[in-house]
Amino acid sequence: MPSVLQKIIYTGTFLSTPSLDELQVLASHAVGVDEDGVIRHIEHMSDQSDTGIQELAVSWGWGKWEEGKWSCVKGGAGGNSWWFPGFVDTHIHASQYPNCGIIGKTTLLDWLTTYTFPLESSFSSLSKARQVYTACVSRTLSHGTTTASYFATRHVAATNLLADICLEKGQRAFIGRVCMDSDMSPSYYRDESPQQALTDTIATITHIKTIDPTHTLLTPILTPRFAPSCTSPLLTALGSLSAQENLPIQTHISENTSEVSLVASLFPTHTSYAHVYDAHALLTPRTVLAHAIHLTPPERALISSRKSSISHCPISNTSLSSGLCRVRDLLDQGITVGLGTDTSGGYSASILAAAREASMVSRIVAHLTPEEPSAPDPTTTTTTTTVPQTPDPNPKPCKKLSVPESLYLATLGGASCLGLSHRIGNFAIGMDWDAQLIELGTAPDAEGSVAGEGIGDVGGQDRGNTRRVYVRGRLVHERR
Amino acid sequence: MPSVLQKIIYTGTFLSTPSLDELQVLASHAVGVDEDGVIRHIEHMSDQSDTGIQELAVSWGWGKWEEGKWSCVKGGAGGNSWWFPGFVDTHIHASQYPNCGIIGKTTLLDWLTTYTFPLESSFSSLSKARQVYTACVSRTLSHGTTTASYFATRHVAATNLLADICLEKGQRAFIGRVCMDSDMSPSYYRDESPQQALTDTIATITHIKTIDPTHTLLTPILTPRFAPSCTSPLLTALGSLSAQENLPIQTHISENTSEVSLVASLFPTHTSYAHVYDAHALLTPRTVLAHAIHLTPPERALISSRKSSISHCPISNTSLSSGLCRVRDLLDQGITVGLGTDTSGGYSASILAAAREASMVSRIVAHLTPEEPSAPDPTTTTTTTTVPQTPDPNPKPCKKLSVPESLYLATLGGASCLGLSHRIGNFAIGMDWDAQLIELGTAPDAEGSVAGEGIGDVGGQDRGNTRRVYVRGRLVHERR
Repeated sequence: MPSVLQKIIYTGTFLSTPSLDELQVLASHAVGVDEDGVIRHIEHMSDQSDTGIQELAVSWGWGKWEEGKWSCVKGGAGGNSWWFPGFVDTHIHASQYPNCGIIGKTTLLDWLTTYTFPLESSFSSLSKARQVYTACVSRTLSHGTTTASYFATRHVAATNLLADICLEKGQRAFIGRVCMDSDMSPSYYRDESPQQALTDTIATITHIKTIDPTHTLLTPILTPRFAPSCTSPLLTALGSLSAQENLPIQTHISENTSEVSLVASLFPTHTSYAHVYDAHALLTPRTVLAHAIHLTPPERALISSRKSSISHCPISNTSLSSGLCRVRDLLDQGITVGLGTDTSGGYSASILAAAREASMVSRIVAHLTPEEPSAPDPTTTTTTTTVPQTPDPNPKPCKKLSVPESLYLATLGGASCLGLSHRIGNFAIGMDWDAQLIELGTAPDAEGSVAGEGIGDVGGQDRGNTRRVYVRGRLVHERR
Repeated sequence: MPSVLQKIIYTGTFLSTPSLDELQVLASHAVGVDEDGVIRHIEHMSDQSDTGIQELAVSWGWGKWEEGKWSCVKGGAGGNSWWFPGFVDTHIHASQYPNCGIIGKTTLLDWLTTYTFPLESSFSSLSKARQVYTACVSRTLSHGTTTASYFATRHVAATNLLADICLEKGQRAFIGRVCMDSDMSPSYYRDESPQQALTDTIATITHIKTIDPTHTLLTPILTPRFAPSCTSPLLTALGSLSAQENLPIQTHISENTSEVSLVASLFPTHTSYAHVYDAHALLTPRTVLAHAIHLTPPERALISSRKSSISHCPISNTSLSSGLCRVRDLLDQGITVGLGTDTSGGYSASILAAAREASMVSRIVAHLTPEEPSAPDPTTTTTTTTVPQTPDPNPKPCKKLSVPESLYLATLGGASCLGLSHRIGNFAIGMDWDAQLIELGTAPDAEGSVAGEGIGDVGGQDRGNTRRVYVRGRLVHERR
């Protein structure tokens, strides 16, 4: 990775979500980023002229403009341009990128056999892998995704290539070789044995250590596909490896009711799906569980107690008719939640699209959730009550996710899932400059935009609004 | 409206949905459009060279190229470019365009008073109206909307201006001055009396007749806002006017459960919400009812028998937590359905976005709908049945809307709602050339696109993919 040569002062308006439901707006500010891409200064600028910027740099000990030791990137003026933290995609299958939008009327289990396994198996071809992974990383960067937790395929060479491409293009990434040794996977696409799966996984870990020894950008992540794809010996081995090497883990859980039944039949001695993972030491504070739609209250409590986190993938969940994830229940239980595009269960590689759908799905959940009953009027209370007799462990109404809440999940929430909330997902001194410059009204055909227009149609969907993207101070995408 | 000066031959691939769930692909075809913008020829081209095109023109009696009587627009080659019918937006509030994305956590009735009425009332200013309507028409054209059924505001001058702008920019439009005389609307924004509402409505009808006497592009549409906004005398007057002048009607119905209760309390002598409209002669074959989420089976039967149609507005319905419209039930009952953006209850002015959300919502409905029970095995049937005792008037499962079905609703379905299925929404001889040229991979930063990529991320969201838009043969939008 080339080092960033200069200190840079970024100016303009800085938006971020430092906590759930808090949208922070720092207007007329300057952020000073050092040669390592780390934020060293955040200051209000009373004087935004070049002179004011120079005075600021001098006050920071950066020297005068003419000494050439720093440069300045202005984030535009007015209400149509701002800096925002880079997006964190906590669940994306890079190898499935070519299948975006191809689902038909399938649901999870037949979708896997119809569309997904045939595609993934083709990554035995390195040229195919290079084409798809290059496209996927370029595209996610263009959507402002500065960090992605990738499922690759079970191929070592192709998975290593994904790591190479992320490093070259400058995207922060968790790279997972997919482990799948059970006979639930087709014979043409599965690991030969638990031992082989482990050996192959270690080969990718070694490669990533070789190309990024400090793990500045790249982190290997253990990736049992999901419980039905793995034998118990493989799950045990991965749990041990995670503990020995302090490695993060990613997998799927409770995405689909048929899948939940399948797990119950495959692992009959375990109490629940979550308990299957827990029994194999796979529920750790570094574990990211994708979907988690149909968890029972005891499963939620178990996940919460293990401090594992959940990747909410609303576009995928709706596309595959998997169900409605009750995100508010998860948050209320203290579970860390981030967002995943789940390409290609989800049709879009954009976390902003996922954030929008998270808000949309929560509004459907709100509609389907009866309001909390008012406290009974004591003067009319009788011994025969009409309150439902079924005990409800979560009696609060499942409220809508606001726009700031969805954006928090898309940034700092995702960073928290991946154990990176001290480095990315927000703007603060000591954190890395993983950021995107948003400019409304500069996309083609923007003649229709008017002042005061809401964020929906303008800011939401056009990638063209993402003007520049930085990871650890390096410019990794620029819209021409 | 300037007439189109030349005959034009359009070549390339032509996609359309001539019926529900049928995606027709005409590869290597030529479509000949005359000086009036009407399709006169559709033919396969065995020879796609300039010579082949010339021979085709000669065979149509159009003469040779050098005579200058026709020109040719090539729709690109390969799988990344095609012609598609223009989109039909059957329900859009042009005046609410600046509020796209601004909803907060409101639902219908408080959204109206918090955001909507204050904005609409500002259209007493013609400069405000000009700014917003220009932006809205430009934007919807850029999304490929060739026909829109607009709610304006209650202001005559601003409504007339909307008609002027549509005519100038070449968008086919239904223009509705909003009628709202009841005291359910705020005193600062309502019609003074039924008589005044009628007089003002007739003034807009007269204006539209003046500027487009043949109604080639513009049609006035009677627009009682919704039952709670109108007194019974006004509803009666509008029903009579529709019958006398054969005018179309648009309004809202059963969007929100509180609204349904409100209607029941305001019109206590009527059986249902639909019966309120029917009793005032407002359910006609030219009536478009927006939302229709919470209709009872008798209401659906009534609407079906009156041959009124329904504008499904999925983005709005989800955004405002209004509920899940069971579109399959409507279609199965023979009701004509189209799509509406419902700007700004919906955050997007794009019918393609509405089509996608229609498919998404249907997948949630499918998840929530129990599968049709299998036929009981006669060998095990006993007198004690476990079939639920509640009679289900619609026992079939509410299946997912496929992509072609959603695209049909977005084009020919919407045209049918507006009584225009003989002229627009499909490619056929004698129909108008209302069309859009889609080009994937030409949007900015498309370096990430790969062959074989699905339609989701690439084709769906970037307006940049809509390269050219035509209405009745006139080029009304071109992406530079």
